[in-house]
Amino acid sequence: MSALEREVASSTDRAGRGPQSSPSVPPSAKESVEGKLLKRLLSVVGNPPIEFVLWTGERILNTTQDIIARVHIVDRATLLRLVKDPHIAFGDAYSEGRILIDGDLVQFLDTMYRLAPSQPKAVRTLGALLRGAHRARRNTLAGSRENIHHHYDIGNEFYSLWLGSTMAYTCAYYTHPDATLDEAQIAKFDHVCRKLQLRPGESVAEAGFGWGGLALHMARHYGVKVRAFNISHEQVVYARERALREGLASQIEYIEDDYRNISGRYDAFVSVGMLEHVGVENYETLGGVAHRVLGNNGRGLIHSIGRNQPAPLHPWITKRIFPGAYPPSIGEFMKIFEPWDFSVLDVENLRLHYARTLTHWLELFNANAERVRAMFDEKFERMWRLYLAGSIAGFTAGSLQLFQVLFAPRYNNNVPMTRAHLYV
Amino acid sequence: MSALEREVASSTDRAGRGPQSSPSVPPSAKESVEGKLLKRLLSVVGNPPIEFVLWTGERILNTTQDIIARVHIVDRATLLRLVKDPHIAFGDAYSEGRILIDGDLVQFLDTMYRLAPSQPKAVRTLGALLRGAHRARRNTLAGSRENIHHHYDIGNEFYSLWLGSTMAYTCAYYTHPDATLDEAQIAKFDHVCRKLQLRPGESVAEAGFGWGGLALHMARHYGVKVRAFNISHEQVVYARERALREGLASQIEYIEDDYRNISGRYDAFVSVGMLEHVGVENYETLGGVAHRVLGNNGRGLIHSIGRNQPAPLHPWITKRIFPGAYPPSIGEFMKIFEPWDFSVLDVENLRLHYARTLTHWLELFNANAERVRAMFDEKFERMWRLYLAGSIAGFTAGSLQLFQVLFAPRYNNNVPMTRAHLYV
Repeated sequence: MSALEREVASSTDRAGRGPQSSPSVPPSAKESVEGKLLKRLLSVVGNPPIEFVLWTGERILNTTQDIIARVHIVDRATLLRLVKDPHIAFGDAYSEGRILIDGDLVQFLDTMYRLAPSQPKAVRTLGALLRGAHRARRNTLAGSRENIHHHYDIGNEFYSLWLGSTMAYTCAYYTHPDATLDEAQIAKFDHVCRKLQLRPGESVAEAGFGWGGLALHMARHYGVKVRAFNISHEQVVYARERALREGLASQIEYIEDDYRNISGRYDAFVSVGMLEHVGVENYETLGGVAHRVLGNNGRGLIHSIGRNQPAPLHPWITKRIFPGAYPPSIGEFMKIFEPWDFSVLDVENLRLHYARTLTHWLELFNANAERVRAMFDEKFERMWRLYLAGSIAGFTAGSLQLFQVLFAPRYNNNVPMTRAHLYV
Repeated sequence: MSALEREVASSTDRAGRGPQSSPSVPPSAKESVEGKLLKRLLSVVGNPPIEFVLWTGERILNTTQDIIARVHIVDRATLLRLVKDPHIAFGDAYSEGRILIDGDLVQFLDTMYRLAPSQPKAVRTLGALLRGAHRARRNTLAGSRENIHHHYDIGNEFYSLWLGSTMAYTCAYYTHPDATLDEAQIAKFDHVCRKLQLRPGESVAEAGFGWGGLALHMARHYGVKVRAFNISHEQVVYARERALREGLASQIEYIEDDYRNISGRYDAFVSVGMLEHVGVENYETLGGVAHRVLGNNGRGLIHSIGRNQPAPLHPWITKRIFPGAYPPSIGEFMKIFEPWDFSVLDVENLRLHYARTLTHWLELFNANAERVRAMFDEKFERMWRLYLAGSIAGFTAGSLQLFQVLFAPRYNNNVPMTRAHLYV
């Protein structure tokens, strides 16, 4: 939080009602060219209850509604960059403290997410701050390694500040509203294992294992052997130490290699939170891996962020946070399964669970903000806060979804008739 | 059943072990040209445990396994037609009694369904008897009316012989293995209503209502008002009488009109077993109807036969049973939702439930075979038996799937966090 934000925060109702409507900065009597431009942009996106404050103190507000946020733009250069390349400039300016948000960041972003669809023109203007074109590094074997390194190898200690004790960096599963983050992550592990109907002695291939939490859970509670693949070096080192420490190393082989190189036959194939990094152009290959390891039997589950309709990830997220990432629509998701004649048994949408998971992460992140700043710097802290808050807004406003897809080879009739066994 | 089949049936183990391996017709010593041709076709599709018997008594068998069926071809013209146009000729010849199956019809068809995928060449030959190209009448407003009339208007009395008391002509839901057909159909109604979370006083638009059973159930047990659309005249007449008789006419409006003409706003949109007749080219239109009637709130459910991958319905089924019908893959299914930014909440595959439903239908059909013959003729009886048995085989062998898709407008966050409420 910058000095100005700390200042404005003190005048802001933290209970969620947003900044006070009475101006903390007096409006300038005369409208500037910049003010007129911003006013026009606001009108194009349907006049959201957001007030802009320019470096001159000039206030731009196009609505009589109570405002939910006040956006301070600290200099003219920032505004010009926003107009020129809104997709990237907003996130960068926010990270650098050249845009300050007075009010609830999540609520502000949620409002922005809800603007675009009913106002198609907005996509090119203000609404486009949170949408845009896809510019990904290709997910070749080497490209994937680069992409994954960028995000996941920045420090296990950093992630441990806000992921909770499971170190699961994927959507949790809240069986009741007051579940804690750790409880919900463990419930997610169980939900996945139950969907896969894991039985003692079975073998599981895991593609992308994060810090190894799901594999540990499967080995400990379901008695299976796991061979798990991941190309994040930091995660592999962490997971191996963890398995040794927890006495499960004989049941789990953590392998530093690409999912495309998984060999052998298994009873189940599972991948939680890797598909976002695979690239649609490789979905058929991924399905081929599942097909090869399962043969005519077994079960598979892929858990991934997705979309209601094909759309690129926000370009700022792609550029600064997740290079090469892409959340598929279900139609695109099916490119994994259809070429291999897999039967899709169950698709569950856990969108609202991800909004809650991210809210828990953001709470922990904020509680540890000073340590994050000490590890990196204020720019990094602001960048990651924007990413987490923007993701909450994305899942809440439905521009992001979370799909768990259970599948089986076509000829496998050894599948449960109903899903009642998941809810006993 | 023809005289010959009745004869061979008496020498057949009805417990499911198939025809006896000892020949009832002595093999001819010398192989004919036709015999050689059939032998080659059998080898192309992997030598299934099926014996062919020609009109001369010559037996063709390419395996030492126990056979599961013996196929009698009663004259040379039938064999020639089979070779020339297998897709249509098999079904027609079976219907006309020119092909007779000694053994379990479902098991025979199931074996045939399992041949093709591992033997791609078979698609053009013997395996193709049960697959093939799509030749549908287009589902324009008029075309749909013709297509639906062909199948659904052949007589309510006929359908009442084998659909059970609910008259539901769609996949049932077996919550326990010994559920009766009627119990499973009612459980299906409830499963749909629970997924839609219907509440008293709400309004429901139903697209394609069959004989009206689901609408009656929704009105009676969930206290909703239903406006239901269907273009089968016979079904509309039947459903209206039924609603009057059961005292529910004030809650249900059965309308003889196309789904494309549904007007008004509703809390829920439901369509069970109509999508098969919509045509992929109209999926976006169907989604637009759901979008128009739900607005930014509400829930929708579409229940349909589908496929693991895009493939036309068998051409004989398309020609003789279901003109204009097409079961979509999930990827195709999504063309309903993606253009309208719907969130898909839940996809459930009920494939094995449909195999069981059809088994119950076939049992009732067989028990009423004489009445079917009296209503129509033996050809019709054989044609429908082949259709029902072939459908069981299709669902058992995984060439057909059954998808229930629950969806909601993107901005509807008033959806349950988990599916536990379906299993209380």
